[in-house]
Amino acid sequence: MQNFTYYSPTRLHFGQGQIDKLRSEIGKNERILLTYGGGSIKRNGVLDQIYTALPGYQIHEFSGIEPNPSYETLMKAVSYARYHGITHLLAVGGGSVIDGTKFIAAAIPYHGEPWEIVTSRGKVVEKAIPLSCVLTLPATGTETNSFSVISKKQTMDKQSFASPHVYPHCAILDPTTTYSLPPRQTANGVVDAFIHILEQYLTYPVNARVQDEYAEGLLRILIDQGPKALTSPTDYDIRANIMWTASQALNGILGVGVPQDWATHALGHELTALHGLDHAQTLAIVLPALLNEKRQAKYGKLIQYAQKVWGINQGSDAFKIETAINETRKFFELMGLRTRLADFKIGEEDIPALVRKLEEHGQIALGEHQDITLEVSQRIYTAAL
Amino acid sequence: MQNFTYYSPTRLHFGQGQIDKLRSEIGKNERILLTYGGGSIKRNGVLDQIYTALPGYQIHEFSGIEPNPSYETLMKAVSYARYHGITHLLAVGGGSVIDGTKFIAAAIPYHGEPWEIVTSRGKVVEKAIPLSCVLTLPATGTETNSFSVISKKQTMDKQSFASPHVYPHCAILDPTTTYSLPPRQTANGVVDAFIHILEQYLTYPVNARVQDEYAEGLLRILIDQGPKALTSPTDYDIRANIMWTASQALNGILGVGVPQDWATHALGHELTALHGLDHAQTLAIVLPALLNEKRQAKYGKLIQYAQKVWGINQGSDAFKIETAINETRKFFELMGLRTRLADFKIGEEDIPALVRKLEEHGQIALGEHQDITLEVSQRIYTAAL
Repeated sequence: MQNFTYYSPTRLHFGQGQIDKLRSEIGKNERILLTYGGGSIKRNGVLDQIYTALPGYQIHEFSGIEPNPSYETLMKAVSYARYHGITHLLAVGGGSVIDGTKFIAAAIPYHGEPWEIVTSRGKVVEKAIPLSCVLTLPATGTETNSFSVISKKQTMDKQSFASPHVYPHCAILDPTTTYSLPPRQTANGVVDAFIHILEQYLTYPVNARVQDEYAEGLLRILIDQGPKALTSPTDYDIRANIMWTASQALNGILGVGVPQDWATHALGHELTALHGLDHAQTLAIVLPALLNEKRQAKYGKLIQYAQKVWGINQGSDAFKIETAINETRKFFELMGLRTRLADFKIGEEDIPALVRKLEEHGQIALGEHQDITLEVSQRIYTAAL
Repeated sequence: MQNFTYYSPTRLHFGQGQIDKLRSEIGKNERILLTYGGGSIKRNGVLDQIYTALPGYQIHEFSGIEPNPSYETLMKAVSYARYHGITHLLAVGGGSVIDGTKFIAAAIPYHGEPWEIVTSRGKVVEKAIPLSCVLTLPATGTETNSFSVISKKQTMDKQSFASPHVYPHCAILDPTTTYSLPPRQTANGVVDAFIHILEQYLTYPVNARVQDEYAEGLLRILIDQGPKALTSPTDYDIRANIMWTASQALNGILGVGVPQDWATHALGHELTALHGLDHAQTLAIVLPALLNEKRQAKYGKLIQYAQKVWGINQGSDAFKIETAINETRKFFELMGLRTRLADFKIGEEDIPALVRKLEEHGQIALGEHQDITLEVSQRIYTAAL
């Protein structure tokens, strides 16, 4: 096991009716900016629950934070918040709204050009406005971590930053808020969480037993519960198990003391930036191709993945690995995602532009061995056609 | 899954050499009271490492915190700390030293009689002196939680309290500090952690998949790594896996959203208080007898435990349960602990006094169903003869 520091200070309230806990978490005199995306939180009653939980509070609203939240949109919220002297941000939605609100939180008190927060990968952040969140789409784990991914429309960039100042103050996870999710969003969330786990697990063995057991357990849960969430969308236990699994998948506990990959995310981000694919959809395309390409480097962990996660105990090592990769692809397809670039009419002629974007973002030595060069990335994109 | 709140604000530094991180965690102007037990931290070099990590700091020392830390000893530290205006406590040792230091932290600013902290179960605690800790005996998980168990010699009481004010500020977990542990302490730590997991897992099913997968994974790790720690005491990975497992076992993550038992602990505490047995030793005696007694109430989870933890997939349900309980007992004995009261010359004539102590402490309705009455406790003690 490698050395590590673990820190996760967010207070988390999980379960039906927990939105009410906001009252004990946010002071009565705060000037709150409630941030959200479209109108779904009005239709499903979540917005009403929040107003009921915070009677007499000063609540401003900023809506319209889009999937892959854009710098352009977020800067409007920053201006609004500065003008109105906002003291607490309340993000209500999925990963995009919460990631976007982390950027707003860091940008409000920042004196330079806020895009520097992203280009510096968060290093310039010295303080942030406190933020709380109500999660309505389990997927990214952002509700208890310090990461954020922001896009810039103007230049078609999508990049991440991290700062200890943007850990949410508290997070509310009420599984009933996910009952009304469209199947596509439910599926995206499950696949996103699944691949978050693999980015931290499917590298090379370092005898980190706790991290391995946790990762394998969470993967098995998603394989079992994910498809059931599509057929039984209002089953509380299924929704609760998925919500808690997705949160654990990227709260940091799986990644401590082990190598991490994240190349699938890097290659996927360019697909979203240039072609507008859903984040999870990009991962479902890139991952199987990447695993095929990196069979040797990931040999030990691929065998372990095959055995512990998919129960493949018969046959040669090569057979186990082949079967595990195929099962992974089939799982994504069972959830309703596609696993080929061709499904989105992205062809060989589009690959050079993707690779150029990787180069532009300095993504020239990816993966747990930093050996996924631009040439290897090109092969992975090609294998994903 | 039941509703829950999860909060774990302690910053944790794990790995060889991490004692050095104390310098970034404790301000140069703090007046530190370093608390510890006997002389082992002098012999194994841990004390030297701490002084090296904190050059020029004002460090006072208070030694002699005993296993099952006593109110009587701890109050001496409270007087010392008040007199010298201590502003930060640094606990170096195992669960007893850290639990004891939590009491000191809460007692220093407390205006009433500090034993009220224990009798009120922590409710009277409104503030505490910040405490950091260097863990040298993985077992109780106290390094990242808000619990503490304190004994009073005068009345032979052993009771727990909890308060959000006594979460450690930071915890250092360096597996190399455990290389020199006597085998008995290593074994006690493994068995203690094992039973902490069972207290949160072996109740009745509530379809909490994450908690179940985590618990089963951690149990399998202890079964595999525990005996190896006895034969290979300086193997880094084994020590690291045990240290991280024991910490996870009681940092709260296993117990959220699920029923909990803790009757084994309650019955065990009286054995320590009246007969001086090691804490883990009491649990190894009580648990098999309790599982036998509660077979019906724990039926579903006992089957799951047999299958997932011990790999017992053949035979009738009754056979699986019987075998799982026997395997559990054999594991404790393999670790060098005894599993019968008779091994300590405790006989039937001693049981009434144990039951009277339970009654005195209000422990009259224990377990996840609150159905372990004094009569049932008496049967469990008797079955453990």
